[in-house]
Amino acid sequence: MIIGIIGGGQLAKMMILAGYPMGQEFIVLDPAPDAAAGRVAKQIVGAYDDPDKLRELIALADVITFDFENVPADAIQVIAEQTRVFPGAKALATAQDRLSEKQLFKQLNIPVPAFHCVDSAADLEDAIETTGLPAVLKTRRLGYDGKGQKVLRNREDLNGAFEAIGMQAAIAEQWIEFEREVSLIAVRDQHGNIAFYPLVHNMHEHGILRISKAPYDNPELQAQAQQLVTPLLEKLDYVGVHATEFFVKEGQLIANEMAPRVHNTGHWTIEGAGVSQFENHLRAITGLPLGTTEAHSHAAMINFISELPPVEKILSIPGCHYHDYGKKPRPNRKVGHATLRASSESKLQSKIDAIMEIVDSTKSSRS
Amino acid sequence: MIIGIIGGGQLAKMMILAGYPMGQEFIVLDPAPDAAAGRVAKQIVGAYDDPDKLRELIALADVITFDFENVPADAIQVIAEQTRVFPGAKALATAQDRLSEKQLFKQLNIPVPAFHCVDSAADLEDAIETTGLPAVLKTRRLGYDGKGQKVLRNREDLNGAFEAIGMQAAIAEQWIEFEREVSLIAVRDQHGNIAFYPLVHNMHEHGILRISKAPYDNPELQAQAQQLVTPLLEKLDYVGVHATEFFVKEGQLIANEMAPRVHNTGHWTIEGAGVSQFENHLRAITGLPLGTTEAHSHAAMINFISELPPVEKILSIPGCHYHDYGKKPRPNRKVGHATLRASSESKLQSKIDAIMEIVDSTKSSRS
Repeated sequence: MIIGIIGGGQLAKMMILAGYPMGQEFIVLDPAPDAAAGRVAKQIVGAYDDPDKLRELIALADVITFDFENVPADAIQVIAEQTRVFPGAKALATAQDRLSEKQLFKQLNIPVPAFHCVDSAADLEDAIETTGLPAVLKTRRLGYDGKGQKVLRNREDLNGAFEAIGMQAAIAEQWIEFEREVSLIAVRDQHGNIAFYPLVHNMHEHGILRISKAPYDNPELQAQAQQLVTPLLEKLDYVGVHATEFFVKEGQLIANEMAPRVHNTGHWTIEGAGVSQFENHLRAITGLPLGTTEAHSHAAMINFISELPPVEKILSIPGCHYHDYGKKPRPNRKVGHATLRASSESKLQSKIDAIMEIVDSTKSSRS
Repeated sequence: MIIGIIGGGQLAKMMILAGYPMGQEFIVLDPAPDAAAGRVAKQIVGAYDDPDKLRELIALADVITFDFENVPADAIQVIAEQTRVFPGAKALATAQDRLSEKQLFKQLNIPVPAFHCVDSAADLEDAIETTGLPAVLKTRRLGYDGKGQKVLRNREDLNGAFEAIGMQAAIAEQWIEFEREVSLIAVRDQHGNIAFYPLVHNMHEHGILRISKAPYDNPELQAQAQQLVTPLLEKLDYVGVHATEFFVKEGQLIANEMAPRVHNTGHWTIEGAGVSQFENHLRAITGLPLGTTEAHSHAAMINFISELPPVEKILSIPGCHYHDYGKKPRPNRKVGHATLRASSESKLQSKIDAIMEIVDSTKSSRS
């Protein structure tokens, strides 16, 4: 079975490494000649929406999937008409647009922050009547890692806010003073079976995911999250791995956003769960039975951002695994991660602290 | 870091997949244009002892290792003079020759079956005076999976025995009526630190490994095995993963043979141990700290021999992983394996039975 992946970053790379043992073959489409996944599989160098390159990919692959969801909707439609593609056009189109996403959540009774559409600076006043203050103004499309966002703390912040995000179609959202952020990684197969990983507790730094810890062991929230996500996956006729990020406030989940793909907050599953999110995604899209999503023990994932800490130092911490994406260092770029395992949460925390010390000392020694 | 691997079979393939996350790159040398590892890394197509191809490999790689130990000693010597190669020439030369191997074991007080050198048919009489009957006549070189062996049950079997193994330099060994076979996978780093995996219980079928189960939980035998193997690794100044196969008889270990490489009886470590034998081998040869060798739970490895059972059936068994080496089916060829995990030995056994049923029904449906 040959799998075509649109996007050749670290998500594609990790998917490929999970698929090779099962005898699967891969071809990625990515505009960067030095794409991370291109080092471990065949690559077509080209734009995600280049019709010739897409045709080439479709001709070579038995099934198409994504490491990058912001593929133009037209391109996805073209692919979907010609071959099997998972997840489908509907899921991608919804996830690409924060407004459609929030509207769908609302329609399915998934709690969301109050939100309002902002198509011009003039809409801001109306918007904050709905959302209150503080609020967050976000572009509807192409935002990630906190990019294309502006916090509106007071009325003065409204001035120039729409210009600050590039005068693009936007959405204003109520600011949630949350206690923590969690995510639910789910996988649904072609028969409609769904498996859920344990909830993950996520910590961000400057808008970028820094640490994920699993399992976030809260049976009530786990049940709540699974109950919310199940109709969402069914509505989208979803196949593959899907991630939903939630805020936790007063014991309730409020959906922040979803990703129609394997997710950074699920990287710990490579070494920390029975079957990783990458293998389960591949099993789902190729029609194989889903594997166990149980966590072996306590696990954490720490992103390496901008640059890699020395591998020999990181691996000197017992129970640690090192992932180097093969990407050039660049400010705020995710270039790798570590996975940690421990038999208890407190032991896990000591190891996280040890890693963060190495990460911080790498930074200071180079600056 | 670029690692050159001599031999491009499934061992090289699994090593490569373990090294990619750590940012390592690979190039394999193998005469078969469709070598398993060549599907996931760069390959030089050429004989293991082709001087030009070896020079090409040495020029490209920072360090050299093996997936196949029967590389001519001259070739290894040439490589060792020009670059770093782990394990070293001494370990490979010893492991290539059953007589040198047994002599070294004996010198280090590692219990072995009584043995005697057989250089001609005329030596057989002397040999069985040492070994008794039954005995096994084995070629000194290039034997594996029971090939190049002849069992001598009685004096009549001596007639034509030397001819039957191809009139090659041989060794006669006492027949051990063992209770079970176990193996110890060890890894030694460049500073002399050694880590041991738990003992593995191995079951063969027609001379070919069929099932490995871990851990073989016997603290006394574990201690005994580690005590026997430690001086062996030190004597050989060994770096990398090393496997020793033992017979168990009346609570004692008797060494059968060693392999200077990652080993079929260690494949369960990919999903069943903290850090796999493949990752630990790479950590050792590239100067990185060794990782934990602890088993997560109970694990088993089942070889797929001659042909692959259907992946969708195998993966329907919970806690199961499928490995397809990408090799053409051929009688008695190892073409893949399954790894199983379970929380108890009895649950593991039910899953092994389920896999074997699928394997057997595949065979019968195709014959």
